[in-house]
Amino acid sequence: MHKVLVLSQHATRYRELLEAEVLPGADISYAADLETALPLAAETEILFGAPDLLAQILPYCPPLRWAQSSWAGITPLLQTSRRDYQLTGVKEIFGPAMTEFVLGWLLALERNIPGRHAASRWDDSRDGHIAGKRIGVMGTGSIGAHLASACRNLGLATCGLNSDGRDVEGFDRCWSTADRLTFAEGLDYLVALLPNTPATNGLVDAALLGQLKPGAILINGGRGNSVETQAVVSALADRQLRHAVLDVLPREPLDDTDPLWRVAGLSITSHTAAPTPGRAIVAVFIENFHRYTAGKPLLHLIDFERGY
Amino acid sequence: MHKVLVLSQHATRYRELLEAEVLPGADISYAADLETALPLAAETEILFGAPDLLAQILPYCPPLRWAQSSWAGITPLLQTSRRDYQLTGVKEIFGPAMTEFVLGWLLALERNIPGRHAASRWDDSRDGHIAGKRIGVMGTGSIGAHLASACRNLGLATCGLNSDGRDVEGFDRCWSTADRLTFAEGLDYLVALLPNTPATNGLVDAALLGQLKPGAILINGGRGNSVETQAVVSALADRQLRHAVLDVLPREPLDDTDPLWRVAGLSITSHTAAPTPGRAIVAVFIENFHRYTAGKPLLHLIDFERGY
Repeated sequence: MHKVLVLSQHATRYRELLEAEVLPGADISYAADLETALPLAAETEILFGAPDLLAQILPYCPPLRWAQSSWAGITPLLQTSRRDYQLTGVKEIFGPAMTEFVLGWLLALERNIPGRHAASRWDDSRDGHIAGKRIGVMGTGSIGAHLASACRNLGLATCGLNSDGRDVEGFDRCWSTADRLTFAEGLDYLVALLPNTPATNGLVDAALLGQLKPGAILINGGRGNSVETQAVVSALADRQLRHAVLDVLPREPLDDTDPLWRVAGLSITSHTAAPTPGRAIVAVFIENFHRYTAGKPLLHLIDFERGY
Repeated sequence: MHKVLVLSQHATRYRELLEAEVLPGADISYAADLETALPLAAETEILFGAPDLLAQILPYCPPLRWAQSSWAGITPLLQTSRRDYQLTGVKEIFGPAMTEFVLGWLLALERNIPGRHAASRWDDSRDGHIAGKRIGVMGTGSIGAHLASACRNLGLATCGLNSDGRDVEGFDRCWSTADRLTFAEGLDYLVALLPNTPATNGLVDAALLGQLKPGAILINGGRGNSVETQAVVSALADRQLRHAVLDVLPREPLDDTDPLWRVAGLSITSHTAAPTPGRAIVAVFIENFHRYTAGKPLLHLIDFERGY
């Protein structure tokens, strides 16, 4: 039997979903916190759960051979020195949710949906549109590529930014991080979907924002470290940005008394852009469990060196 | 020379756009109203403009051979008895704009964008999504088909309604008008994009709304005659509808004092869903003018019998 430990604040939900499945050879325990998990760790061969909790239990699981993350952000596990196990992510799950989030905000802002939602008089002034606009996406992994393809289907020009400027399906052209200021030039929309790594710290700064088309829209759906919040506030004040949507922030949750809540043109969406969809994540774990027991390559295997 | 009369409240805009083009053989006059147009009518071979104005000038243009409408809605011209000329529409122009309107509202409502736009505290409650939902589109012409394809790309199931239930690209399945109650069964979203004809009067009534999935969303981006407004108000009160977006109404503009403005869950968008895009319409006219002078078939030719 393969000893599996599910460690997540959503352990109860995962138990419901996993108990509805047949997983031959699996002996599964569930823990919603470290205290419950610790006595089970010594025999654990397979971990499935939240990377921050998994990182903490890692030293107590000598026989660990495989860990399945339930989040896209696996930074806590990369920050440990342990490398003698297979780490798998959930890369392809978040694309549709993030695409809906980004398209929803761009369309809502262009079509003045917040204003028209509770309109109280006839106003046939003409609204904007997204077709024909130029969107830049920072981060061209599966989430960014999914977004770019959707944008292209709707008639947008799509520019991508990644570490080395390699071509990625769905993007008209990609630039390297070193060329980020050229990438940003004249963009109508800038969307950051970057993971939290040292290489992404502050990539969206005043210099980058200054390259956008005046009146551009910024959306950060990645991690808070990549966007300099004060540069965004200044760009909104200058009208260099028409609107900014920050789903993520350097410190979360943002305190209710934080002045950011009252910045005109800034919407904060409380890290809801691409919520963890339980059923889809459990499906990835199950598929990978079958592959693991059959000795086949696992899906969404993380390269510890690259960090994705 | 072919005598062309441009008759539209946007005549000045069309003049700017047309004067930037070379149209060999065209002798073009411009009129923003009937009074200006009348002295020019007697020699007019080609009309280009707004169907309501064209319908009124029609009797005064004996030599008319072709009329290019600048709107999708050509009802005023169909209501005259004259049939001895070629009438062309602008069918394929409005698809992208209508698609942006419908997707924008569906995503904004599912993701609670009106609420999150000016949020003032952290709220990580989970929002909805459109992927996996079932959308029904009444009207499967070029606008409806464009919307259906976009929805399918985003992972929705697409159902269509048209006169005879014929298959249309972009729709998983189509039903005939006679089967409209079956078509509506269990839909998450209902979008009406119907032209104003006797056959579409009141198609969206209490019986149809009652077939939708409880808590469905209704959007009317077509014409006001097809939706029974009071049935919508009742369905909102009963929570059979979660939200309704009416871009069009039986009488427009809606008076500022009308109680409809204060119905909870109803957004009225003042006939802005698919605004006439001047440049694209002028491009259709120019293409058709070249075809006309070359004796080739015109694009978007209307069949007077079918009405589209």
